Amino acid sequence: MTPTDPRPIAVLGGTGPAGMGLALRWARAGEIIIIGSRDARRAEDTADRIKLKAGNQAKVSGMENSAACAAADLLVLTVPFEGQAALIKQLKPAMRPGSILIDATVPLATAVGGRASRTLGVWQGSASQQAAELVPTGVAAVAAFHNLSAELLNGDGLLDCDVIVCGDDAHANQLTRTLAAKIPGVRAIDGGKLENARILEQITALLIGLNIRHKGHGGIRITGLPPEAYL
Amino acid sequence: MTPTDPRPIAVLGGTGPAGMGLALRWARAGEIIIIGSRDARRAEDTADRIKLKAGNQAKVSGMENSAACAAADLLVLTVPFEGQAALIKQLKPAMRPGSILIDATVPLATAVGGRASRTLGVWQGSASQQAAELVPTGVAAVAAFHNLSAELLNGDGLLDCDVIVCGDDAHANQLTRTLAAKIPGVRAIDGGKLENARILEQITALLIGLNIRHKGHGGIRITGLPPEAYL
Repeated sequence: MTPTDPRPIAVLGGTGPAGMGLALRWARAGEIIIIGSRDARRAEDTADRIKLKAGNQAKVSGMENSAACAAADLLVLTVPFEGQAALIKQLKPAMRPGSILIDATVPLATAVGGRASRTLGVWQGSASQQAAELVPTGVAAVAAFHNLSAELLNGDGLLDCDVIVCGDDAHANQLTRTLAAKIPGVRAIDGGKLENARILEQITALLIGLNIRHKGHGGIRITGLPPEAYL
Repeated sequence: MTPTDPRPIAVLGGTGPAGMGLALRWARAGEIIIIGSRDARRAEDTADRIKLKAGNQAKVSGMENSAACAAADLLVLTVPFEGQAALIKQLKPAMRPGSILIDATVPLATAVGGRASRTLGVWQGSASQQAAELVPTGVAAVAAFHNLSAELLNGDGLLDCDVIVCGDDAHANQLTRTLAAKIPGVRAIDGGKLENARILEQITALLIGLNIRHKGHGGIRITGLPPEAYL
């Protein structure tokens, strides 16, 4: 693979609305996308639906999660919190050293039958730190993409939202910001260490509450930083 | 007091940068401001400095905290977390039923010698819920103004930040939003119940981390809500 070849992005749990929306936007930007799902057939169907929207040149395929994971080294996790730990454990043998796991999991209380506007406490501090603890050595965990509206991602318009990226590996963090900035309208911001992911996860719960209360598709913009802070 | 008389606003702990900045903006908007401080003399000095910036018609005076509290029924608390509980306990006898306590306290880890980009867990869920537990019956606690840059508040420019207001009392919540919207550039948003204050408090820690990392004066805007969600 030459440096100019785009690396494939596996969107694991990619048949849900958030995964589909990210895949669609990246496919439109020319990225090679592999949709991962428990069910290979369902992954292929979703890939076809994304191609229909993204255009025929779009490079989108579907595979069972482990196969998708083995075929990529950019791994994006968009699953409900209740499935996160089990999926990472299952995928662990398929993860290659040097891979990056981009985690967008939000520990919503819905995982235990509670409200989507509330979160659960996670022992490690955040769902993304739980992910970091579960991946094999040599795989960097990054937290991002929590606060993008799945509904807007699946549309055609510009997103009006910033993506704050948190992670302890500078290279993985930067690569994730590059991916974020490929979504039209999104600005990517380095949010520092992975431990800050807990706040990104909380913000999703706040936005869900605002969406319910005000009937919208809330996002956030960070104001007041110098231009070089935004990618 | 007729309905058209503005109610005085006591900014308790008003000699710090956040309190001064809010007082300045409200004084410019014609509100009657009482700066509260442990030291009446220091409160008066701060009031004079605010008047110098806000113009001579500005109605700003300074009093010891308990006297300020007794003279107003809109109470704004802008103190470091380590002083919050003790101050509310001290002020309790001076609080009149029907008053509104607007709490902007953030439980930063600096309270115990930690970092300003990290928060402490508060048993009640948030500093504002701790405040709600401490005020006398008949006083409504509201959480707001956590995420405004003190430096920008003390300047002359428009703020580029939304104020999310959380509180269980609909009237107090609405009145606080009206106050927020008097700060030029600020849009006020109903953020629902007081329990959501924990997320507003966390966002401040995130913004402080971003300010350190990117050398800015971060704020947030909520995007994607219908126009009627913003005041």
